[in-house]
Formats: sequence, structure tokens, C-alpha cells
Amino acid sequence: MAVYTDINEVDLRNFLTAYDAGDLLSYKGIAEGVENSNFLLHTTKAPLILTLYEKRVDRGDLPFFLGLMEHLASRGLTCPLPLPRRDGALLGELSGRPAALISFLEGMWLRKPEARHCREVGAALAAMHLAGADFALKRPNALSLEGWKGLWEKSAARADEVEKGLEDEIGAEMAFFSQNWPNDLPQGVIHADLFPDNVFFLGDRLSGLIDFYFACNDMLAYDVSICLNAWCFEKNGDYNVTKGRALLEGYRSVRALSDAEIAALPTLARGSALRFFLTRLYDWLTTPAGALVVKKDPLEYLGKLRFHRGVVSPGEYGIDV
Amino acid sequence: MAVYTDINEVDLRNFLTAYDAGDLLSYKGIAEGVENSNFLLHTTKAPLILTLYEKRVDRGDLPFFLGLMEHLASRGLTCPLPLPRRDGALLGELSGRPAALISFLEGMWLRKPEARHCREVGAALAAMHLAGADFALKRPNALSLEGWKGLWEKSAARADEVEKGLEDEIGAEMAFFSQNWPNDLPQGVIHADLFPDNVFFLGDRLSGLIDFYFACNDMLAYDVSICLNAWCFEKNGDYNVTKGRALLEGYRSVRALSDAEIAALPTLARGSALRFFLTRLYDWLTTPAGALVVKKDPLEYLGKLRFHRGVVSPGEYGIDV
Repeated sequence: MAVYTDINEVDLRNFLTAYDAGDLLSYKGIAEGVENSNFLLHTTKAPLILTLYEKRVDRGDLPFFLGLMEHLASRGLTCPLPLPRRDGALLGELSGRPAALISFLEGMWLRKPEARHCREVGAALAAMHLAGADFALKRPNALSLEGWKGLWEKSAARADEVEKGLEDEIGAEMAFFSQNWPNDLPQGVIHADLFPDNVFFLGDRLSGLIDFYFACNDMLAYDVSICLNAWCFEKNGDYNVTKGRALLEGYRSVRALSDAEIAALPTLARGSALRFFLTRLYDWLTTPAGALVVKKDPLEYLGKLRFHRGVVSPGEYGIDV
Repeated sequence: MAVYTDINEVDLRNFLTAYDAGDLLSYKGIAEGVENSNFLLHTTKAPLILTLYEKRVDRGDLPFFLGLMEHLASRGLTCPLPLPRRDGALLGELSGRPAALISFLEGMWLRKPEARHCREVGAALAAMHLAGADFALKRPNALSLEGWKGLWEKSAARADEVEKGLEDEIGAEMAFFSQNWPNDLPQGVIHADLFPDNVFFLGDRLSGLIDFYFACNDMLAYDVSICLNAWCFEKNGDYNVTKGRALLEGYRSVRALSDAEIAALPTLARGSALRFFLTRLYDWLTTPAGALVVKKDPLEYLGKLRFHRGVVSPGEYGIDV
């Protein structure tokens, strides 16, 4: 949750003159999104989200993110749609930051998702993978194997501060993935961060996907494994196979998983657990005490990584093999 | 700005069953209010504010605050209106906290108010004073002379950490006010915290007053002096007499100020500067490093206090005497 940058009414009104957005009635900083500053605007036309891109987001990536939202929406996916300025541009500037106006999606993210919601998430993820197939722009995944190595080099020496033995354990994981990371699975545009706070529901019906700011090109089944980690573990760390089964069935009801993709699930899930472990570990070690950010516990993802390391067959995820 | 307590969709839906509020479409934690957690709800009927009262607000005061909003709205003042539950109560409970649903006011608070806005604020403050005259409930001002003494006793010994010589200087102020605090001026319900973030505008038109959680019974002219401090100083600490004149003229266009009230303005403004200095000083000395709260600099109000101490005639505020 974040409002890193405040804005004033003079700059905002000036920013809005470039758009056909109606007259401004109110704006509130909202506690949503961890990388950017977000405001909910009411206008005489419709509610809108105003996003100011903070420095953790590479300005050069914004055309990919905003273009992807436009592309997916044009293919019928419910996701936020950037509102073009009168000159056609999707980006403006406000308070010294790149800024975009984006349609407001009604819906709520679930603090307590159930298996039926996981099924919807799986189906929506597959629909996104199909809809993204003909998106023209490319963006490599900065948080795949090479990115992990960079994070680990900056964290390894202090890893044992978090848990004794971690430097050795994660070092072994890095060696494992250097040899065993798949490179021949179907690729496409992945969301790469489809956690519960990025999926909206109205009642039990999924109403939209948001926050495409980690989207990139990578293995589609890797995206599935991220969702298994994000949606199918209980707070106590246990894997919930009912949720896993629902998520995978939902996915396969829209897009088939090949035998090779299924066989790779334990490795992919172990890798995606490592990916979130490493970013959280790095943030944990480098975020100054007192920063206005809630640090996420890296140990949650260490537990998931260990679970996946022990998986012998993808059937353990609830998939029929 | 604050979201201290998160809520989940299950508890929220349950909470809403007690109201005739329409179906919930979305809720967002908003960065508004420093004492409570606030959410902006969209429903099939209308946008609403959901406020969870955190522990700094005394539960016993809530009927005064909520009743006052109802009273003022019934007298034509634009302010948030608590939505009664089906059983008539204005308060429910959510996530273990007292909680209320309150109408959403469109409008924006001004980061850069001008003299014309100060005039509107003065007029709205006077209208509130008149509208509050027949409100039945009473609430003494916990942050008047006796409250200042309590705060000062807890801060005096460490005051010089903030600026050398402060213990002596503020000690002298406390002695001054013990002898010179007025007690014979017209009393009524005051807002007591009418800072720019509590006044909404649509364009140049004042569209509503919010945040009545410091409201109490005290001298009406004391409320005027709070507004002089909150609205009429520049960021560099200079008093802007054009804004002061506009605010006072706006006020007097709706409610007359007696000669005694005018004569007391320098003392009242000096006292209200001390009041905000003392709460900020106390928070400054006691808020742990790393708390998710932005500490306000007490020295801003020390500068204002010193300015008022030097005022010889109320004419210096821009009032014709």
C-alpha cells in the first residue's frame, strides 16, 4: 500500500486538461500498489485511477505495460484500460513523475479466497495467456534466473542473519537451477505477480485483473506456478491441494497444459518460490528501519520453496497426471 | 494519512447487512484522517466513507461527534452525514473497532489555498458556529488550558532536545496563560481542527467541512484563531495579512465578532499556536522511530506562537478595529 508522492490540485487540474476526463470532483490517495502512488479520482464522467510511476519502475517499460492493458482489454479481458490523452499519448507527467489515467475497476480483492475463487483465477490466467499471444511488444523477465543471481550476490553474505544455514541452502538452490531451469516450454506474456491483491471479485465472480507492472515474456507454466504459490497455501504454510486442484482445473478449462509443462511444475514452483524469497530477502536486508513500507517476511517463501523441493510428482499439486 | 486496520470482505459484507446501503462494489483504504482508518466504498447506491475508530478516539465521545454531524447537516451545513443502521444506531463494529458509515462528500482539500478560499473558510466556520448553537450534547475541550498543562508536564524535561531554551520559553507561556486565558467570551460548539485538509472545495466554491473528531464546546473566537494559524501563514512562517483579512471578513459576514472577542484575538491565537505546538511536541518526543506516521514538526507552531506574542493590536491580523 502506498502513496509515495502527494499531488496538489493546481498541478492535477493542469494535468487533466490534456484528457477528456470530465470535471474533477475529488481525489484520494489509496492504499494500493507497492511500487507506485495511486489516487482514486471521481469526475463528472466516471471514477478513474491516477497512477504516478515511482523510480522503481523503469520508464522505458511503461509502453509495454500500458500497451499490454490496452491489448488485453481489446481482446475482452477485464483489466484497467489506460485513458489516452487528447494527443493520443497514454502517459503524461505530474509532480515530476510519469503518470497515467486508468479506468477504475469495481471489485474487491479477497483477503480470504476459497477454492472456488482459485478456479476463477486459473481460468482468468489462462485467458490472459491466450489474449496476450499476439501482443507485439516484448519484455524479458528481469526476475528470472539471471535476475535471481544478481539478487543473491547482493544478499548471500548476510542471509544467515535471517536464518542460520540459509547461505548454504540457497547457494545449493542457485546451483540446482543453473542446471535444471527449463528452457523449452511454451512462452508468452505472463502477469508474473497475480497475487490475491491483484484479482478483483464481485461476489464469487472474478471481475478483473490489475497491476501488470511485472508483466513480461516468459514460460506460461511459470505464471501458473506463481499462482500456486500465491493462492494455494494456507497462512500456516500448508499447501491446500483442494485450492491447487481448483486453480489448475480452472486453467486447463481454458488452455491445455502439455505433458512437459505438467512435468515441470515442481521445478517451476520451486523456482517461483525462490524468486519471491529473493526479492523479499533483499528488501528485508536493505530497507531501512523506519521506512514507510511494510516489509514482507522472506521466510514465508522459504517454506514454500522447501515444500516444492520435496514434491516427487506433479500429482501432489492436485493435477491428474 | 492512515489505514491502521485492514478489513476483510467477509467481515465487511456482514457489517453492511445492518445497513440499507446497496450492494458493495469496491472498497479502498484511503490516505486521509490521522486518528482513524478510512475506506472509500462504492456501492450500487452511492459512494460512502467507512471509518474505523482507532484507540486514540474515546468511544464515549462518538455520540457527540456523529450526533453533531447529523445536527449540522439538518441545519443545512454541508458535512458528512452518518448513515443510520436499520435499527437506528449510528455505530456498528468491524474488525474489533467501533465503525460508522458516513456519506461521501465530493470536493478536494487545497494544498495551495488563496485569500479567496480563506474568505470562504471564515464564512463556513461562522455558519457552523450558528448552526451548532442549539446542539444538545456537550463535550468539554480536552485540549484547552488544563490539557496543555498535562501535555507540558510530560514534555517539559525533554523540550530542549527540540530547541535549546524551550523549557524556559514554554514554561513562561504556561505561566502567562494561567493568568491571562479569557473566560468570559461567547461559547458554543467549535470545530477545533479546521485545517486545510478538513475543508473541501469544488473549484473556488467551498463544498463541505469534514473531520469533526476534535469538536467540543469552547470559545467561538478560539476557533477563529485556530483558522488564522492553519490558513494564514505561508510555508516560510510569514503571516499573510491578506489571507487573514479575508478569513476574518468572511467570518464577520455571517457572525459578528464582539469587541471583546476582537481584543482577545492575539491571546487566543497565541494560545491555539501553543495547543498545536504542545501536541506536536509530545508526539515528536514519544512517537517511536519507524512508526508508520509522519511526525509533524513542532517548530512550525513555535514560530507562530512567537509571532502572536509580538502582536500589539488585533489590527495586525487584518481586522478593522
